[in-house]
Amino acid sequence: MRFEDLSWMDIEEYLKGDDRLMLVIGACEQHGYLSLLCHVKIPLALADAASQQTGVLLAPALSFGCSPYFLDYPGTLSLRISTLLDIVEDLVRSAYRQGFRRFLLLNGHGGNDPVRARMYELANQLSGIQIGWYAWWQSHSVQDVALAHTLKPSHANWLEAFPFTRVGDIPQGEKAPPFVPGLMSAQEARQAFGDGSFGGIYQVNDDIMEELFRASLADILQLLKFEKE
Amino acid sequence: MRFEDLSWMDIEEYLKGDDRLMLVIGACEQHGYLSLLCHVKIPLALADAASQQTGVLLAPALSFGCSPYFLDYPGTLSLRISTLLDIVEDLVRSAYRQGFRRFLLLNGHGGNDPVRARMYELANQLSGIQIGWYAWWQSHSVQDVALAHTLKPSHANWLEAFPFTRVGDIPQGEKAPPFVPGLMSAQEARQAFGDGSFGGIYQVNDDIMEELFRASLADILQLLKFEKE
Amino acid sequence: MRFEDLSWMDIEEYLKGDDRLMLVIGACEQHGYLSLLCHVKIPLALADAASQQTGVLLAPALSFGCSPYFLDYPGTLSLRISTLLDIVEDLVRSAYRQGFRRFLLLNGHGGNDPVRARMYELANQLSGIQIGWYAWWQSHSVQDVALAHTLKPSHANWLEAFPFTRVGDIPQGEKAPPFVPGLMSAQEARQAFGDGSFGGIYQVNDDIMEELFRASLADILQLLKFEKE
Amino acid sequence: MRFEDLSWMDIEEYLKGDDRLMLVIGACEQHGYLSLLCHVKIPLALADAASQQTGVLLAPALSFGCSPYFLDYPGTLSLRISTLLDIVEDLVRSAYRQGFRRFLLLNGHGGNDPVRARMYELANQLSGIQIGWYAWWQSHSVQDVALAHTLKPSHANWLEAFPFTRVGDIPQGEKAPPFVPGLMSAQEARQAFGDGSFGGIYQVNDDIMEELFRASLADILQLLKFEKE
Amino acid sequence: MRFEDLSWMDIEEYLKGDDRLMLVIGACEQHGYLSLLCHVKIPLALADAASQQTGVLLAPALSFGCSPYFLDYPGTLSLRISTLLDIVEDLVRSAYRQGFRRFLLLNGHGGNDPVRARMYELANQLSGIQIGWYAWWQSHSVQDVALAHTLKPSHANWLEAFPFTRVGDIPQGEKAPPFVPGLMSAQEARQAFGDGSFGGIYQVNDDIMEELFRASLADILQLLKFEKE
Amino acid sequence: MRFEDLSWMDIEEYLKGDDRLMLVIGACEQHGYLSLLCHVKIPLALADAASQQTGVLLAPALSFGCSPYFLDYPGTLSLRISTLLDIVEDLVRSAYRQGFRRFLLLNGHGGNDPVRARMYELANQLSGIQIGWYAWWQSHSVQDVALAHTLKPSHANWLEAFPFTRVGDIPQGEKAPPFVPGLMSAQEARQAFGDGSFGGIYQVNDDIMEELFRASLADILQLLKFEKE
Repeated sequence: MRFEDLSWMDIEEYLKGDDRLMLVIGACEQHGYLSLLCHVKIPLALADAASQQTGVLLAPALSFGCSPYFLDYPGTLSLRISTLLDIVEDLVRSAYRQGFRRFLLLNGHGGNDPVRARMYELANQLSGIQIGWYAWWQSHSVQDVALAHTLKPSHANWLEAFPFTRVGDIPQGEKAPPFVPGLMSAQEARQAFGDGSFGGIYQVNDDIMEELFRASLADILQLLKFEKE
Repeated sequence: MRFEDLSWMDIEEYLKGDDRLMLVIGACEQHGYLSLLCHVKIPLALADAASQQTGVLLAPALSFGCSPYFLDYPGTLSLRISTLLDIVEDLVRSAYRQGFRRFLLLNGHGGNDPVRARMYELANQLSGIQIGWYAWWQSHSVQDVALAHTLKPSHANWLEAFPFTRVGDIPQGEKAPPFVPGLMSAQEARQAFGDGSFGGIYQVNDDIMEELFRASLADILQLLKFEKE
Repeated sequence: MRFEDLSWMDIEEYLKGDDRLMLVIGACEQHGYLSLLCHVKIPLALADAASQQTGVLLAPALSFGCSPYFLDYPGTLSLRISTLLDIVEDLVRSAYRQGFRRFLLLNGHGGNDPVRARMYELANQLSGIQIGWYAWWQSHSVQDVALAHTLKPSHANWLEAFPFTRVGDIPQGEKAPPFVPGLMSAQEARQAFGDGSFGGIYQVNDDIMEELFRASLADILQLLKFEKE
Repeated sequence: MRFEDLSWMDIEEYLKGDDRLMLVIGACEQHGYLSLLCHVKIPLALADAASQQTGVLLAPALSFGCSPYFLDYPGTLSLRISTLLDIVEDLVRSAYRQGFRRFLLLNGHGGNDPVRARMYELANQLSGIQIGWYAWWQSHSVQDVALAHTLKPSHANWLEAFPFTRVGDIPQGEKAPPFVPGLMSAQEARQAFGDGSFGGIYQVNDDIMEELFRASLADILQLLKFEKE
Repeated sequence: MRFEDLSWMDIEEYLKGDDRLMLVIGACEQHGYLSLLCHVKIPLALADAASQQTGVLLAPALSFGCSPYFLDYPGTLSLRISTLLDIVEDLVRSAYRQGFRRFLLLNGHGGNDPVRARMYELANQLSGIQIGWYAWWQSHSVQDVALAHTLKPSHANWLEAFPFTRVGDIPQGEKAPPFVPGLMSAQEARQAFGDGSFGGIYQVNDDIMEELFRASLADILQLLKFEKE
Repeated sequence: MRFEDLSWMDIEEYLKGDDRLMLVIGACEQHGYLSLLCHVKIPLALADAASQQTGVLLAPALSFGCSPYFLDYPGTLSLRISTLLDIVEDLVRSAYRQGFRRFLLLNGHGGNDPVRARMYELANQLSGIQIGWYAWWQSHSVQDVALAHTLKPSHANWLEAFPFTRVGDIPQGEKAPPFVPGLMSAQEARQAFGDGSFGGIYQVNDDIMEELFRASLADILQLLKFEKE
């Protein structure tokens, strides 16, 4: 149930029986050998699956996020943090005006965490709103899967190498994690990270990826209940 | 050649031989019986076709634009004008930093016209940049096709009823264009426009739509040459 | 009935019987051989004439607009687009607070079009407000006059050469319109446009100018009725 | 030498021999029985006189300033302080780009003082710029004239009652200055100030006004020398 | 009664019987031979004394203000004017939300004067708020003390050389005030002011400083009554 | 070595031999039974200790941060996220201009995390800058101490109950952590958290607090080396 397949009349109909909305906040940035849109594709795939099971509506994904540190990798299109906060505010306000009340923000990118700060501000202004926040790779569920397979999750390593994020050959083996001295500039980051991966194994068996996906999907299905206690 | 199917290494390779980039600026707003994403889908389809013929890269589409007047139609997610300008500035600056120089902005939505103002400001700041702007429905080519078939193009009428923007049944016949008294509020607009169409025939033969599409595509192919005289 | 000739007590008195206000949004920018203030003088002359016939109040004109592309022509004083939008918002909000409800914005300059976007946002926030927008040179009335005389209206050509905008000698004859390749920087624009005119005949008989003026004035008088259907 | 009487070519010519520019920053606000545009008219008259004697160029006046406290007096059109700062920055930057280097800002309104803060920021960014600031009523010269006639200058009393700011009858006699308890809201200010004057004698002999004008003009002529020691 | 020595429960208790709050707005900037924090320390000492006598609460001091002209003196940490205004607005709004209504802003730094403009805007938005503003060195009381001792108060001269602002040796004697040609850049200011003092006597007898302090404290105690007539 | 005890001349001297600066970013918000300034006091105490051992300069602490969710607890003074980012940017830019290059930001408050996003943007703009970020309670060192004593660290529990943050009696025993359903509004947060603690033991033996402090101090001393590999 994506907006793109619906007219406004369909949304009006939906709002008669439900007030939940999922919104994917992604990024367009280097992911080593993987797709530049990893941070959109993964939460979007999860959201589609959750929508299929629950019928909860899915707003168009925001394909851009904050990645100033990756700007020297071609293809990284980064928003200023102030811009990103304004976008998400505008989208939530628009939907709130029309009757949506329970929002699940599916964040795909660590650099987007500051959005939470603006959402807290909105929560003080929009009466009766409920805002859930989910960042799949930070969840206990996903970390437990990694732990169970003694894998270390990191940017652009196996963690994000789903069948649908691979766009070319991926190296075998493992990369030593580079040293990170404070908040690096784009120039320093490119020097430090080389091919873009933060280190670890580049890819694992698809069964593990499937397990990861299911663990995360279960989280989302739970969050969509918007339980208050 | 969309970013989503590429890694940063592919973009780096591309930049060795080309510095052109297409960027679709859309909207998520009511389109009567058509998809809420009409203003993304149409320029995106044109851009994909142009990319296929020329190899010019296509950045991820911006799915949101400025539609304050449609906010009372559920499903319309509108950005403040200030937000929209900041987004497009950020995207162009990011790509410029990496070596892109010739940008073709494919605008899908009339409410996004103010973006041009910010782009002029950027043109004064980013040395050597070239920015083309194309709004398919405003082009002479498209208007000539409409004229040839004695059709009046308008919001959410036949003009936007492509096979790929239809998401349900569309009425037969024609709608009388409502009276527009100045800049209407969302509330007034909903009252005035009812089902959302600005009037005219709801749909026409697909051959005309195909003719329209080809006329517009020819414009884009021409603009991608970035001729200076 | 300009603000400059009135005290606040006069405005208070006016508001007992009327809630209309005209606001001129101009620009200070190169106009070839014509006054730098063409885009103020023309709508202001129209507004004065309309005020004389109707008694509708006229706020002080905004003498500045958005002209980033002309910044390499000395005397062009251009606002950032964000600044312009904020100004007009502040002026309208101030007057709204005091009881004005029906605003006719008389825009003198194409670069100011984005103001409409902010006005739509205001229309959603200020209950009962009505905002009309009129750009004289874009009106059917003016274009019909041009057509009737087989003249092509353009920036700094005959179209704007009123007796009251001429500040020196104006060339005879006609200028070939320069080629415009996308959104030009100030440097490119100066190269392309030379003396600043966008081409066409530099001046015509004052009778035509008078005809033009009257056609536009008739539009404004009509708009000041703020008819809703 | 006002911009309105010149074309861009005239400005270009001027810049070959001079780099000075005067800019009037005014306000549109209640002035008791006087014109709503007092704060424009007075510095503008001074600037015109100074321009006549020195040939220094005069940019179009900014007719709006910050007067939040007078918003309950109809006809007061007030900018947010952030808006005002942006405007003056934009105007100075535009002129600086074209070669102007020595700016004399003629402020007509106390509420505009914060502009100085932004100008200091600009002075750190625009190499070689010189920015003078003159608020006529705050000058020693003007205060000396008042003192010599044992008059107390204040908002909308005799101080601003020039022949060219009077728009109707003005009361005889004197008003007791109201008590001002901190920073008042617009509502409180209207209650406190009644007719809008801050108290004192409403008008004096035109000879005194002429003396005042000449004293201030002498200041401006001195400042236009932009002496550095 | 500083916030740092209290828990939220203490504040809640206080609000049952009082709604007054003092807020110190300071600066971190060069003060010649004196502490970089002079503009915090002086109003803070006054506020502490006033709090001790009245029990009025004292919010944490803002240690930063606007000092763009001193940025070439190391240790000067200056906020943009827009930033400063936003901070004070945020602090006042936070406290207002919790029940504070009468605010006394104790400004320690001339460059912070524009804060008043934003406070006037707030006064129009927050019903029932009362905002007092006090800048100790601009008060008649302090100027009278200076006059009585035939001393000229100025930046970083004796005026600010309290026992608690001295951090090292201070020169004997007097400095000739430098010439100030308009709004200087940081570079020009450093050249003009040398050691940072604006001239005059560097220090005076502590008895005078004590007299000064008492005079100013008396003002504050009076202002804390928030008398309306 | 705090700014308050130094003049600008001292800073200039320091910069001849060092370019490091510590900056504390705190908050003024409810901490249950503890001081409203916990998030300033703790990193400040650490910074003072680190300064004493290394001689590294310490800028004035920022006493305010982002705590929108606690605004219904009196005494919480919260900045908008946009304001906070601007402040820290201004402070870092000021010091960078004067020669500081290596910054260690000591964050005391989780709600301030978004500052990192702006710092990444600055790192791309200020050549040669190095920015370290340390949030004491998020460090492995501190978490290891907690683990060793089988204590769970949380907001306003034992973790922050240092001798210097206690301002009154603290309950014995332990509080059950409240359920947190997504991003709560200030109203919901107050209902959920009651006395303000997030649960766990209210206070522990001072030896543990000392151990915690030392562990964190060791981290800071290490970070002040600004090692690049």
